Amino acid sequence: MTALNSPLALKLGAFVALSNDEMSALDRLHARRKLFPPGRDMVHQGQVNQSAYILASGWVCSYKLLSGGARQIVDFQIPGDFLGLRSVLFRTADHNIEPVTKVEASEVLAIDLLDTFSRTPRLATAVLWAASRDEAMVVEHLVGIGRRDAKERTAHFLLELGSRLKLVGLGSAQGYACPLSQYMLADALGLSAVHVNRVLRELREDGLVTFQNGHVVIHDIDRLMVLADFDKSYLDHDGPLLK
Amino acid sequence: MTALNSPLALKLGAFVALSNDEMSALDRLHARRKLFPPGRDMVHQGQVNQSAYILASGWVCSYKLLSGGARQIVDFQIPGDFLGLRSVLFRTADHNIEPVTKVEASEVLAIDLLDTFSRTPRLATAVLWAASRDEAMVVEHLVGIGRRDAKERTAHFLLELGSRLKLVGLGSAQGYACPLSQYMLADALGLSAVHVNRVLRELREDGLVTFQNGHVVIHDIDRLMVLADFDKSYLDHDGPLLK
Repeated sequence: MTALNSPLALKLGAFVALSNDEMSALDRLHARRKLFPPGRDMVHQGQVNQSAYILASGWVCSYKLLSGGARQIVDFQIPGDFLGLRSVLFRTADHNIEPVTKVEASEVLAIDLLDTFSRTPRLATAVLWAASRDEAMVVEHLVGIGRRDAKERTAHFLLELGSRLKLVGLGSAQGYACPLSQYMLADALGLSAVHVNRVLRELREDGLVTFQNGHVVIHDIDRLMVLADFDKSYLDHDGPLLK
Repeated sequence: MTALNSPLALKLGAFVALSNDEMSALDRLHARRKLFPPGRDMVHQGQVNQSAYILASGWVCSYKLLSGGARQIVDFQIPGDFLGLRSVLFRTADHNIEPVTKVEASEVLAIDLLDTFSRTPRLATAVLWAASRDEAMVVEHLVGIGRRDAKERTAHFLLELGSRLKLVGLGSAQGYACPLSQYMLADALGLSAVHVNRVLRELREDGLVTFQNGHVVIHDIDRLMVLADFDKSYLDHDGPLLK
């Protein structure tokens, strides 16, 4: 796979029209490709000198464990996302990163990233944009847990995933493949798995969206967006701002 | 004020040892200084082509309003923080920014920021670090609302503010001035103002921390950190990684 059609290039392309030089720089970042099995942390809380990764295929979840054992999933990463970008600039990883499925990812050392930034500053800006978008998603999750009820929160989450997947060529307005369990949804949404199950049944019976057998099928995106109060401008997908 | 002793330089200095060129570039970013009265939005949700700001003095809050009218405060900004950095790279502001006190801030246009990044890539990396730290704080707030009880959450919040203020020379291990009302704390912590009042009384009666008359006084930081399960590594304040 060349950078041209990589999920990361598709994603950054929503913000910056990439030049040939910038494409080559992205290609170099993809050099150290590795495979990871599901269920075993790629990065763990408290680890030092950890690498970042660019996710090429598969799904990953980022979570924090509290000393009492409670777990909060912060976000799921899909192809084209950075893993541990925040941690690579930090001395110590502040969260865990665990593959949900079999994963293919390119390791990026801090020094490669800094070197790429100094050679191609527009790419640094594009990565800052991607980091800002990641933060905007965490903000939406905070607003969701703080102020949305279980049904709105779940609908918002499914719409956000769909929009992100569509940008990297992995979904459509009709739906997408989704390997997450109801337990994972529960830990991300601050609900119990039983509650998630009930909410998903309600959404299905309302004719809005079905999540079954690893597939999300969106039946009525307009009504679903109204229910979730979903304003996708925080994902900023309207095409390159930097020409 | 020159960049050398600006709160932003103090903050970025925790990540990168700034050269004279980088200091000058920071100085230029501080050129367009403006004053803002409390209580009126500097940036509002849905605004396009907005500027970012570097906060020089005063306190600011960032919040989202849902269409039903509920409000979630995402974070408070203190001197040295960027305001609307996420939004300046986006087409549309995804949150509101409102001064809590009288505020002095330097306007930064997107083009100035991109120009600075291409001339001083290390500064771009430092700004990416600052953005990563902002995201790490939002993640902690998500974990707090999702998984910490009201007392732990409030204690964690007061410790985080103290650590941030100390870095920019505005507080000590003993305490700091804090202009926030209990209503603001409530909207940030996902609690009612009555609940915040009760939690603050408990923290005071436990001999841990007092927040009264615009001042936070920390009585026993070790016990407070244990109560809050506060691990400050997510703030990454241990001195420059980039020499």
